[in-house]
Amino acid sequence: MRTLNVALGARAYPIHIGGSLLDRPELILPHLKTRRVVIVTNDVVGPLYLERLQSGLKALDVGVGTVVLPDGECHKDWQTLNLIFDALLGDRCERSTTLIALGGGVVGDMGGFAAACYQRGMPFIQVPTTLLAQVDSSVGGKTAINHPLGKNMIGAFYQPRLVLADTSVLNTLPPRELAAGLAEVIKYGLIRDPEFLEWLEINLDRLLEREPEALAFAIERSCSNKAEVVAADETEQGERALLNLGHTFGHAIEAGLGYGVCLHGEAVAIGTMMAAELSLRLGWLSATELARIESLFRRAGLPVTGPKLGVERYLDLMSHDKKVEAGRLRLVLLRGLGKAVIHADSPAADLAAAIEARCA
Amino acid sequence: MRTLNVALGARAYPIHIGGSLLDRPELILPHLKTRRVVIVTNDVVGPLYLERLQSGLKALDVGVGTVVLPDGECHKDWQTLNLIFDALLGDRCERSTTLIALGGGVVGDMGGFAAACYQRGMPFIQVPTTLLAQVDSSVGGKTAINHPLGKNMIGAFYQPRLVLADTSVLNTLPPRELAAGLAEVIKYGLIRDPEFLEWLEINLDRLLEREPEALAFAIERSCSNKAEVVAADETEQGERALLNLGHTFGHAIEAGLGYGVCLHGEAVAIGTMMAAELSLRLGWLSATELARIESLFRRAGLPVTGPKLGVERYLDLMSHDKKVEAGRLRLVLLRGLGKAVIHADSPAADLAAAIEARCA
Ligand SMILES: NC(=O)c1ccc[n+]([C@@H]2O[C@H](COP(=O)([O-])OP(=O)(O)OC[C@H]3O[C@@H](n4cnc5c(N)ncnc54)[C@H](O)[C@@H]3O)[C@@H](O)[C@H]2O)c1
Ligand SMILES: NC(=O)c1ccc[n+]([C@@H]2O[C@H](COP(=O)([O-])OP(=O)(O)OC[C@H]3O[C@@H](n4cnc5c(N)ncnc54)[C@H](O)[C@@H]3O)[C@@H](O)[C@H]2O)c1
Ligand SMILES: [Zn+2]
Ligand SMILES: [Zn+2]
Repeated sequence: MRTLNVALGARAYPIHIGGSLLDRPELILPHLKTRRVVIVTNDVVGPLYLERLQSGLKALDVGVGTVVLPDGECHKDWQTLNLIFDALLGDRCERSTTLIALGGGVVGDMGGFAAACYQRGMPFIQVPTTLLAQVDSSVGGKTAINHPLGKNMIGAFYQPRLVLADTSVLNTLPPRELAAGLAEVIKYGLIRDPEFLEWLEINLDRLLEREPEALAFAIERSCSNKAEVVAADETEQGERALLNLGHTFGHAIEAGLGYGVCLHGEAVAIGTMMAAELSLRLGWLSATELARIESLFRRAGLPVTGPKLGVERYLDLMSHDKKVEAGRLRLVLLRGLGKAVIHADSPAADLAAAIEARCA
Repeated sequence: MRTLNVALGARAYPIHIGGSLLDRPELILPHLKTRRVVIVTNDVVGPLYLERLQSGLKALDVGVGTVVLPDGECHKDWQTLNLIFDALLGDRCERSTTLIALGGGVVGDMGGFAAACYQRGMPFIQVPTTLLAQVDSSVGGKTAINHPLGKNMIGAFYQPRLVLADTSVLNTLPPRELAAGLAEVIKYGLIRDPEFLEWLEINLDRLLEREPEALAFAIERSCSNKAEVVAADETEQGERALLNLGHTFGHAIEAGLGYGVCLHGEAVAIGTMMAAELSLRLGWLSATELARIESLFRRAGLPVTGPKLGVERYLDLMSHDKKVEAGRLRLVLLRGLGKAVIHADSPAADLAAAIEARCA
């Protein structure tokens, strides 16, 4: 088992990474405030893993309640969040009860937001079960639900007390979901870790084969990159924005197609290609470097060109992005492989050309 | 104008107290992040004061959106909270837009919670218009909405950037609401400020006549008491619990009667009498001291005896209180006038007798 510490002062917490951690509830015990937990999961992950986690905790004399939500991004809303509150209040949970989120990013985001709000904050533990959740959404304390007018618009910054990333549960993950997680893994290499990027170019196939050691390394390295950025900028005022490489374009694609058509990681891969294209036009990235990014995404099974929504529509959708400040579009671009920068006011013609180049 | 500083480190903020502050938008301007605000109010306060605040800000070149919620504690729920989110997103508010809550504690709690959650946190300013909101709910950063199974169960700790307490708006406040606010004012004297308690005994009639200078003094002194407690214990782990004098009993009364029958401040007055009765039985308070508390509440127009719900029902309702930890009922009691303490495990017979003594 690998353990990484997220340095957030009084809110510091460990991430344990390794095989079969679901069967080691003793890792969870020291992080509970009282011997009482509620596990929040969904109707896809629940049947696979809930019983194991639950019985392990019960054997340690922990009282365990459960809430099983309907699966899917389309349920990341008020109505579903209220199912958690209904259960917590119905069970008379105290604010010292710990909420454990068992599932992908959707369950983690909703469980975390519910924990942040329940009696103004109850202890929270993440057991992420998708690669994306293990390398991204479970680290950093962002929680949220969607609003009909925007994704992740209602939420909180709320840190877990522990993240348990069990690499074995990734064996049941559909290949497309694995690939989507790899998009975020590759992102860390691109924005700030050129050495990791090279490791990925060499070891990508091992990840696709779900080799436990390779997965554990990639997850640890990803989390450590994210944790460093988050520790430096917990509430997203500056550096943390670099984590959004490809995301402003990506969100436009997700919104333009209607949520659910394209996975988030897929949209990020395409968006990253658009950001790379723009960086190329600004003279910051060479054609060879751009080709290396493209090849890595392709090998991972990710798309590298976006839907033909039309440049105008892209720009309009991008202007709705949360990262827009006082009307200015700030984009994360690449100054070479392994170095991201924030750039406001890219020339409109270059931006349009970059989008166009990736809508084939 | 009096100004009080709430010392919360990076989240420190001022409270301005005085007459006609609504007409001084220049006090608000330095606390905005951008020249854009959304004022949240309700359909009772809005017609009285919205236009004044709005036009003043507009004259300073601030863009002003408005959201008018239905009035009443019964609307302190998800549905109404969503009206705020709908408006913020419909207007494409950025997370740098400032939300101003103009109203009593209900508007303040909902506006504050909306600000805490919108894009995971937008700047927030309180313009409290009831005495209770000016001396209590606008200070301390607690925000929340109700759930069908419990009051204030879903919320956040979220500090405003500024509180503007305009004493003139209290002139339109119904007398019963003024009295309810006085219950919390008297509470500060009882828990930690014997000198203020004496001042109140002497000056209560000036407050009932809404004399501006007396009001401003009482509001400042109340806020400064609350701010000191909150600064020492922002997230309510210890000392802050003292602010709940009378509240565990009071919440039982509110819940037992059905919300809305009895005002919160009225329930607090009755609950404080029950806490005083119990303190008397424990030998901590003299009969004379108890009589002084009762007389002050009576003069303020507050009830001093509760509904006959039956002792069993009281105890059951009290066991649901948020302050219950691991099943133990912790009560705030008085060790003399001006000194509150937290006490767990009061003898059951004394507790029952104290409740009984105040259900006449
Ligand atoms: N909080 C953050 O910082 C952050 C960062 C990135 C993404 N997110 C959010 O995360 C969400 C996406 O997360 P996701 O990609 O994990 O999606 P997801 O949670 O929807 O999971 C994808 C699918 O895989 C299923 N699944 C999960 N684990 C499984 C397993 N072990 N075996 C088989 N099936 C499994 C899920 O039930 C779901 O059907 C989005 O809502 C996004 O906004 C949040
Ligand atoms: N956040 C906290 O720390 C905290 C502390 C105490 C109470 N609270 C909450 O505050 C709420 C109670 O607040 P409240 O007593 O202000 O109730 P309220 O907000 O319902 O106001 C009482 C009534 O007076 C009206 N009103 C407000 N200002 C007025 C004015 N100037 N003139 C005429 N009418 C006016 C309101 O519209 C309402 O009808 C409860 O929901 C309680 O949970 C919160
Ligand atoms: Zn992402
Ligand atoms: Zn109160």
